[in-house]
Amino acid sequence: MSASLSRNRVGVWLIGARGSVATTVVAGCAAVAAGLHPPTGMVTETPQFADCGLPPLGSLVFGGHDVVDCQLPKRAEQLAAGGVLPHGLPAAVAGELVAADAEIRPGGPAPADPRDPDEVIADFAADIMGFVRRNGLARAVVVNVSSTEPTATGDALPPSSLYAAAALRAGCPYVNFTPSTGLHHPALAGTAASSGLPYAGRDGKTGQTLLRSVLGPMFAQRALAVRAWSGTNLLGGGDGAALADPAAAAAKNAGKERVLADTLGGTPQGEVHIDDVPALGDWKTAWDHVAFDGFLGTRMVLQTIWQGCDSALAAPLVLDLARLTLRAHEAGHTGPLTDLAFYFKDPLGDAPSSLGDQYTALTRFAERLREPGPAGGPTEVPGC
Amino acid sequence: MSASLSRNRVGVWLIGARGSVATTVVAGCAAVAAGLHPPTGMVTETPQFADCGLPPLGSLVFGGHDVVDCQLPKRAEQLAAGGVLPHGLPAAVAGELVAADAEIRPGGPAPADPRDPDEVIADFAADIMGFVRRNGLARAVVVNVSSTEPTATGDALPPSSLYAAAALRAGCPYVNFTPSTGLHHPALAGTAASSGLPYAGRDGKTGQTLLRSVLGPMFAQRALAVRAWSGTNLLGGGDGAALADPAAAAAKNAGKERVLADTLGGTPQGEVHIDDVPALGDWKTAWDHVAFDGFLGTRMVLQTIWQGCDSALAAPLVLDLARLTLRAHEAGHTGPLTDLAFYFKDPLGDAPSSLGDQYTALTRFAERLREPGPAGGPTEVPGC
Amino acid sequence: MSASLSRNRVGVWLIGARGSVATTVVAGCAAVAAGLHPPTGMVTETPQFADCGLPPLGSLVFGGHDVVDCQLPKRAEQLAAGGVLPHGLPAAVAGELVAADAEIRPGGPAPADPRDPDEVIADFAADIMGFVRRNGLARAVVVNVSSTEPTATGDALPPSSLYAAAALRAGCPYVNFTPSTGLHHPALAGTAASSGLPYAGRDGKTGQTLLRSVLGPMFAQRALAVRAWSGTNLLGGGDGAALADPAAAAAKNAGKERVLADTLGGTPQGEVHIDDVPALGDWKTAWDHVAFDGFLGTRMVLQTIWQGCDSALAAPLVLDLARLTLRAHEAGHTGPLTDLAFYFKDPLGDAPSSLGDQYTALTRFAERLREPGPAGGPTEVPGC
Amino acid sequence: MSASLSRNRVGVWLIGARGSVATTVVAGCAAVAAGLHPPTGMVTETPQFADCGLPPLGSLVFGGHDVVDCQLPKRAEQLAAGGVLPHGLPAAVAGELVAADAEIRPGGPAPADPRDPDEVIADFAADIMGFVRRNGLARAVVVNVSSTEPTATGDALPPSSLYAAAALRAGCPYVNFTPSTGLHHPALAGTAASSGLPYAGRDGKTGQTLLRSVLGPMFAQRALAVRAWSGTNLLGGGDGAALADPAAAAAKNAGKERVLADTLGGTPQGEVHIDDVPALGDWKTAWDHVAFDGFLGTRMVLQTIWQGCDSALAAPLVLDLARLTLRAHEAGHTGPLTDLAFYFKDPLGDAPSSLGDQYTALTRFAERLREPGPAGGPTEVPGC
Repeated sequence: MSASLSRNRVGVWLIGARGSVATTVVAGCAAVAAGLHPPTGMVTETPQFADCGLPPLGSLVFGGHDVVDCQLPKRAEQLAAGGVLPHGLPAAVAGELVAADAEIRPGGPAPADPRDPDEVIADFAADIMGFVRRNGLARAVVVNVSSTEPTATGDALPPSSLYAAAALRAGCPYVNFTPSTGLHHPALAGTAASSGLPYAGRDGKTGQTLLRSVLGPMFAQRALAVRAWSGTNLLGGGDGAALADPAAAAAKNAGKERVLADTLGGTPQGEVHIDDVPALGDWKTAWDHVAFDGFLGTRMVLQTIWQGCDSALAAPLVLDLARLTLRAHEAGHTGPLTDLAFYFKDPLGDAPSSLGDQYTALTRFAERLREPGPAGGPTEVPGC
Repeated sequence: MSASLSRNRVGVWLIGARGSVATTVVAGCAAVAAGLHPPTGMVTETPQFADCGLPPLGSLVFGGHDVVDCQLPKRAEQLAAGGVLPHGLPAAVAGELVAADAEIRPGGPAPADPRDPDEVIADFAADIMGFVRRNGLARAVVVNVSSTEPTATGDALPPSSLYAAAALRAGCPYVNFTPSTGLHHPALAGTAASSGLPYAGRDGKTGQTLLRSVLGPMFAQRALAVRAWSGTNLLGGGDGAALADPAAAAAKNAGKERVLADTLGGTPQGEVHIDDVPALGDWKTAWDHVAFDGFLGTRMVLQTIWQGCDSALAAPLVLDLARLTLRAHEAGHTGPLTDLAFYFKDPLGDAPSSLGDQYTALTRFAERLREPGPAGGPTEVPGC
Repeated sequence: MSASLSRNRVGVWLIGARGSVATTVVAGCAAVAAGLHPPTGMVTETPQFADCGLPPLGSLVFGGHDVVDCQLPKRAEQLAAGGVLPHGLPAAVAGELVAADAEIRPGGPAPADPRDPDEVIADFAADIMGFVRRNGLARAVVVNVSSTEPTATGDALPPSSLYAAAALRAGCPYVNFTPSTGLHHPALAGTAASSGLPYAGRDGKTGQTLLRSVLGPMFAQRALAVRAWSGTNLLGGGDGAALADPAAAAAKNAGKERVLADTLGGTPQGEVHIDDVPALGDWKTAWDHVAFDGFLGTRMVLQTIWQGCDSALAAPLVLDLARLTLRAHEAGHTGPLTDLAFYFKDPLGDAPSSLGDQYTALTRFAERLREPGPAGGPTEVPGC
Repeated sequence: MSASLSRNRVGVWLIGARGSVATTVVAGCAAVAAGLHPPTGMVTETPQFADCGLPPLGSLVFGGHDVVDCQLPKRAEQLAAGGVLPHGLPAAVAGELVAADAEIRPGGPAPADPRDPDEVIADFAADIMGFVRRNGLARAVVVNVSSTEPTATGDALPPSSLYAAAALRAGCPYVNFTPSTGLHHPALAGTAASSGLPYAGRDGKTGQTLLRSVLGPMFAQRALAVRAWSGTNLLGGGDGAALADPAAAAAKNAGKERVLADTLGGTPQGEVHIDDVPALGDWKTAWDHVAFDGFLGTRMVLQTIWQGCDSALAAPLVLDLARLTLRAHEAGHTGPLTDLAFYFKDPLGDAPSSLGDQYTALTRFAERLREPGPAGGPTEVPGC
């Protein structure tokens, strides 16, 4: 591969690279790049993001870690059978799926893994750097799209944090699309700060919380008093099973509640349930019930029912985040990318909580990426 | 009444002064001013609107036109029986209800009214000016809260336009909280422009359209493709009966559809129904069904069910609008108050269509009202 | 084909033979007969209907009339693309689709058709008798599954009645799965009575009305006072477009309202809307809102949202009805089959209105079909 | 009081006599008996139950046990403030509330109660017998309407069983309207059998389970395959708080699940949540999501939202049960009244599980109560 070509190719290293989200990311990127489907759901393909220097979809090269063996072409067929991917798509992008699968390395650590954490990090980082080198990539971003892990207890780094540390060690920006710990571990705070790398997170805002981030501000702006906000999520697939673990659900719910507390200025009554319903496959139904008071204490109710496919909701956002973070890295941005709060339930830093304000911040960030200047030119980052 | 006191009292002249909304406005204003209830639903009582010079609730004096005879204290009891007003409230604010009712004048014109339109306007204007004089008011605002009238056909001024013209002739700012024509008639364009008065409208955004004004931008910002947006409204009360008239419903629906077209950049498939269901009384249920496409054409659905009391939703907004428009008049603002788009389905002028952006515009307007300067000092307007 | 085999084969002649329902009937019958899918939704395949002498699925031969040219294999592919049929099914049953399509004859009459009604009936009857003869069928049933036609006005026989008359003339029992007139025309009453043939109808109960037929009795049995029952149906496909015609919708709604009136003992407030939403394809969403009073007048609400595929709901019922009516014919039953009320919105004769009672009647009918005796033995009916 | 009068008066002894349900029972009985409200929700006031010898509403005398001190007139005012009772009703039936409150005795046992269980039972029985004697009642029925107690563990009789044993010892029939143990304790099986008294239970079927008992049979009769049935209940009031205890919720959910298992012939996937939402007061919202397969495996969904007031739903059923059980006692019925399954989530004995079949059984029971004969004449039962 020639040097000029290599400068134009960039990597996306997915933690959980054989999951539903990752499979949809790889297949969908190929489909949209080939013009087989419009880029529905990809914010970075709207006019506001033109000329920002984002890497084209066709320039993205995929790889990643996973602990499961089922190869991407087969996973894609499973998703097509479940209605998540269009029929015929797995065959149409078979080449890209095979290529990405060839760049997947075993994840971990397994329960009886003899390595100490630093060795695991070093091995993961070596995997990532090998991917970059082998493919002659200008840079790569590491994105966590694996199943939610239980809330960490104790000092030990959970797996998501080992992967995050490996990203930094490999000189790569990092995006945490899950509620897992990732870079949010105290032991990694110093490393993150001194890395000079940009990072973003956490917990992709795809359905119920997306709604809450527009409905919460509506109640607040109209001075309506929300008394209780209750919700139930039904989902099958891997995420349903993972979140049937109360500890994982707790991690997930913390993000959901933060949105209400931030937009309403207080936490209303009400609980959030996450039920594993395997019959729903990758489809998710979220029911929300909001009891609020109007003028003179009149009691009113808003209910919402959201029926979506989590993988299809998440995948275009993952592509957006990968592109934005790769470009931010190129443009010299470092530290938490708080302007990406639009994408997250529990965003880093001091970001606005209403979706509208987050969108404004995002489009301003796009404008800054467009500007020439000290942080504008493409730079080669050694090691990544 | 002493001159210093009279300067502090301002008038709110309600077209449809014995309807559910007007009754709730008068009773609720008294209740909140007396500290019997918190100002839930009143945006002008939130901290962002402090120190803007808005007239205090206790300074508002009510009067108006109506074609029905049922007096306000009795209407209030009916609303309390239907759960719209708290039990006990009509008795607690009986004095204020009686006082307002004494300032209600017969509306019209009746079908066989012998007067020509200009005489009707003159008589209405005389009613309003009498109200201002009798009560020693510094100024007054005319607010249309009557039942929706059928879409006007032909050149004749419909009743809502006669009232609007009377407001201008009386030197009063005007707010159209309904989808009726009001000042939107070509024959009134010149008068409105040359009046030097501020005005606002139209069609208060209380329920389904309020929701649409936050959900529409959400879909647009997330680049999700809305295929169809269908809705059904069930409501009883006077509004339900009025809107069972297809021509009135058409007027109402035009505003609802504008919100979707403006926020989505195109009109999706789907209809809006408004059903008269007397059993629901003043309570309203709105069901919305949004079919949208996600990544790779995946079909998803959002449904919302809004169960509210229209009078309780409208009344605090009417108080907000009356106060803001009175203050705008005092501060010398003229012409369409486009910064009040937050309150309307079909706002005047070139206003943003997302609720968040409208809220930003509203709070900036509040800041301008707070500023001293040429348009800041209290001014006596001759004749009103 | 040998005589013994021919005695075992029976015909199903579908009016609207290339529509979504008919295509699903033909493809689904082949798939279930071949063991590719379980007989979900087919009541006649439950244990209560064993040993009733119903014709096996594998013995059904399909043909019919239609005015469209798109052949069944292609229609099946379209339905598979829309998620109505499983992917791969059209290919798996291609032979049966081709065979059925070869037995489809042009429907009518076209607007400028020069034939008088009796000629049209004679031609349709000849088509049906040719089908029976050509395939050596023991008998055949005619089932109307075409789009709803506008409510008939005037004395002229609408197309659905021409087909119904043709069925009788061909000596075939008749089932009307639509709200169209069919045999319900006064001019056909004598013919139907003297034909000695069984018939059933009308308007298959697949979704919203199915629900109403169990919820209505629940309210009645619990002595709860239903004040208003409102409903909105969103559907695309051919049915959505047909029902966008108010006259067709009126025909449809009459059946829906009958269920409520019969089960509640009176017609509550509320309307039913049927909206054409092409984006939904063959999928249907029905929202119902029931306002009811409990003890001491307490106001309560039940809402239901039914999201189904009309073709998939209708097809197994059509197969049930074809088999039951063919067997009833064989067993010598004549006149209206009131025991099949379970299947219809607007059933013939004096049938119970609650689904539970209708189910009891249906299972007793199955028992009678099982009994030997005068009306038990297989009989050859001349001409069919 | 004369002997002839005393024969006509009968007692209803409520366990939980100051709860929302009991208060609504006492106030509502008085209101309906006085003609202030129609008997909406009372099945025993429909024509099918005329001439069955049921005690008239005006002949019912109320008393009971409770551990709380708040008196019935005050409880009724609280319920009126929350919209459960009509405004003005507590004043209108103040006499009846005061009279019933005077017959309320302290419940228990308190945690440190020094009495052994048999002493507690004896004391409770003495309370009941005193009530009967003092009021010259022909008989009395004991009805448990107290908060759900946690699932019993161990051999000790839980409080609900102590009350049930006291009912039998006092010679009174017993109805368990809650999911608590009551007579369902192994230690009481012999006593119940040898008592010669009728009894009924358990767990009143008021909302979500009522719906399930008509929807479950619908799916079964239509041969539709229910894959998952999920539900969330939001409720405030005392019941919400009680059921926030997972052990109490477990007791409640067992009954709910039994309905599905019995009507569907198997337990589908899905969970049931019961959330305490104090803001809802005595109002309850139940959302159910049913994922089912139709023909050829097509995936469909039914959702229901039930918004009701539990006390208003329960009270007329409690009055029905009291009257039916008193009449059954009078007519000489003994043992479990399986024909009352219509009223219960988890009915005694081998009862049908569909509401329609249960209603048929109930009306047949009413016919038997109407018949003269050995079990027909009014009999004086010694001691009660």
